[in-house]
Amino acid sequence: MKICVLPGDGIGPEIMAQAVRVLQALDLKFEMEEGLVGGCAVDAAGTPLPEATLKLAREADAILLGAVGGPKWDTYPRDQRPERGLLGIRKELGLFANLRPAILYPELANASTLKPEVVSGLDILIVRELTGDIYFGQPRGIETREVDGENQRVGWNTMIYAEYEIRRILRVAFEAAMKRGRRLCSVDKMNVLETTQLWRDIAEETKKDYPEVELTHMLVDNAAMQLVRNPKQFDVMVTGNMFGDILSDEASMLTGSIGMLPSASLNADNKGMYEPSHGSAPDIAGRNVANPLATMLSAAMMMRYSFDDEASAQRIENAVKKVLAQGYRTGDIYEPGTRRVGTKEMGDAVLAVL
Amino acid sequence: MKICVLPGDGIGPEIMAQAVRVLQALDLKFEMEEGLVGGCAVDAAGTPLPEATLKLAREADAILLGAVGGPKWDTYPRDQRPERGLLGIRKELGLFANLRPAILYPELANASTLKPEVVSGLDILIVRELTGDIYFGQPRGIETREVDGENQRVGWNTMIYAEYEIRRILRVAFEAAMKRGRRLCSVDKMNVLETTQLWRDIAEETKKDYPEVELTHMLVDNAAMQLVRNPKQFDVMVTGNMFGDILSDEASMLTGSIGMLPSASLNADNKGMYEPSHGSAPDIAGRNVANPLATMLSAAMMMRYSFDDEASAQRIENAVKKVLAQGYRTGDIYEPGTRRVGTKEMGDAVLAVL
Ligand SMILES: CC(C)[C@H](C(=O)O)[C@@H](O)C(=O)O
Ligand SMILES: CC(C)[C@H](C(=O)O)[C@@H](O)C(=O)O
Repeated sequence: MKICVLPGDGIGPEIMAQAVRVLQALDLKFEMEEGLVGGCAVDAAGTPLPEATLKLAREADAILLGAVGGPKWDTYPRDQRPERGLLGIRKELGLFANLRPAILYPELANASTLKPEVVSGLDILIVRELTGDIYFGQPRGIETREVDGENQRVGWNTMIYAEYEIRRILRVAFEAAMKRGRRLCSVDKMNVLETTQLWRDIAEETKKDYPEVELTHMLVDNAAMQLVRNPKQFDVMVTGNMFGDILSDEASMLTGSIGMLPSASLNADNKGMYEPSHGSAPDIAGRNVANPLATMLSAAMMMRYSFDDEASAQRIENAVKKVLAQGYRTGDIYEPGTRRVGTKEMGDAVLAVL
Repeated sequence: MKICVLPGDGIGPEIMAQAVRVLQALDLKFEMEEGLVGGCAVDAAGTPLPEATLKLAREADAILLGAVGGPKWDTYPRDQRPERGLLGIRKELGLFANLRPAILYPELANASTLKPEVVSGLDILIVRELTGDIYFGQPRGIETREVDGENQRVGWNTMIYAEYEIRRILRVAFEAAMKRGRRLCSVDKMNVLETTQLWRDIAEETKKDYPEVELTHMLVDNAAMQLVRNPKQFDVMVTGNMFGDILSDEASMLTGSIGMLPSASLNADNKGMYEPSHGSAPDIAGRNVANPLATMLSAAMMMRYSFDDEASAQRIENAVKKVLAQGYRTGDIYEPGTRRVGTKEMGDAVLAVL
């Protein structure tokens, strides 16, 4: 079992160090190799996704990523921006299925800005398509054209989906729904966008293979509202890359504890990249205060999906629950009456349980 | 002063009737003419935007709209869908500037699913571009193509903005910010979409004309999160048509009382269409239970923006505040201890104050 470890930027290296300790504690035969991605790769090699990293990622069975980005690189040219590294791995490895759970841990219910009765017990899985849509669609660009007799800059992008791309992500979502509450909500904007009219049509077709799953459709603007109004109405949600970017972040924030949320990005063979849902938090980097739990929970997802090792996945997840129950909290989830610890001490606590 | 009145579908006619009474009570020299738009126009004339309605709308100084749509027309062909009527008026009349306030009335603080301390005093203005972007971009469609040696359906749409379109909506947003808290947050996805890189560049250029306004930029996924995490950080937000559709609905729902929120869609000469932010609510149509206040508040926006009559705008707005203070509530905002009334009785209450 070969794992490609990509700590990345900001708090990435710190949280990754703790996740790696957790993996080592499982005492399985992992081979772990580290690579550079994002801003640190731009600094070291002039590109956010060096060939060596891509090679490592291709050869590994799974990839564990910390986070990329930071203000330092915000003004760099587009092809040297840290997030290009992320988008590059997704596309090159065909990681089309992004699974993003939004789960509220009972101990952290107060962290939410929503009323406890609205979010307690929240457990949504958002399935986001990750290698198509307007993220990668051609043509795209900025150019100067004659508009109304004047030279003007014009910017454009292309939202595009082929049948097979929609079908395969819907299958992933239906399968996930089968293992959960058997309710799937497909989100589109079919009243305006032809692309998503096709999406809705194919969702209806795919449904025939999953008679036990209840499929509903929701327009994206309504979905953004319903997540605020009554998020517990959802079990699994599935949508395209762009809408999924927005809705999955909105859904994570409903929990108020985004430092707890992992994600998986899978290809057709369950090879995957696993990373916390939060960002690189450059403002707190290097201070041993970041929450490493989302990265550990990402490692748990890795055990489940890429290594088909449900037992190890649950071992990690249960250890995380246990340290929460024991009262350990990093600053982002701290409240009076609990025990404030740093990144490394949180790692110690999880290891002690394991 | 000529007003084109378009009641539309569902609860549209009921709420409009009360808003019209309010306008009449102002005792000004209005000429009001009614037209058909949306599903009722499809039923009567085979199209959601009959020529006669478009003519009325063009000749009027302002348009007051109820709501359009309903399950009956959901399966009609695309060009006979009620929302086409709305999109048609926006585009034909060049109503590029959509102003959507998200305001929490102190009396209704409990209606929100968010904790009171997070939303009390909320007062955001979202400025959404309304006649461009992927809503109207060409090319678009669904067709069968050869993909990987197979015939497959492909759906695509074009996100596109020209310089002048971005510049004029940003000016509207900066002007609005000047009249409020002088803070403007421009929302884009510049790290992925060239279209919105151009948007950000032009926002920076436009800023030079408004040195007193503090301009910030936020990525759309982060904006969707920040609206949940800490909505009161925002004063004015500005964004494109697609992102604005999603974020303005999310922001309205933060208040929990979307039945209170008006909107304005303006062209370059302040001609405008005014409508409540909520939908046509077919499930409660015809039962005298819908909340007419958002439509009345839309009429107030009409007085302000299209008729430059701030006094009348405030008269309506104050009357609405007064009836809330008096305890009148329609079902959507009712809570124990207040006085539950129907659509018409709410109209009576507002008229009594006026
Ligand atoms: C960094 C960015 C390109 C990325 C995306 O938009 O996909 C991020 O927001 C995410 O959701 O993983
Ligand atoms: C009905 C629909 C086409 C419309 C839109 O997407 O613009 C609506 O959601 C709105 O926000 O006014």
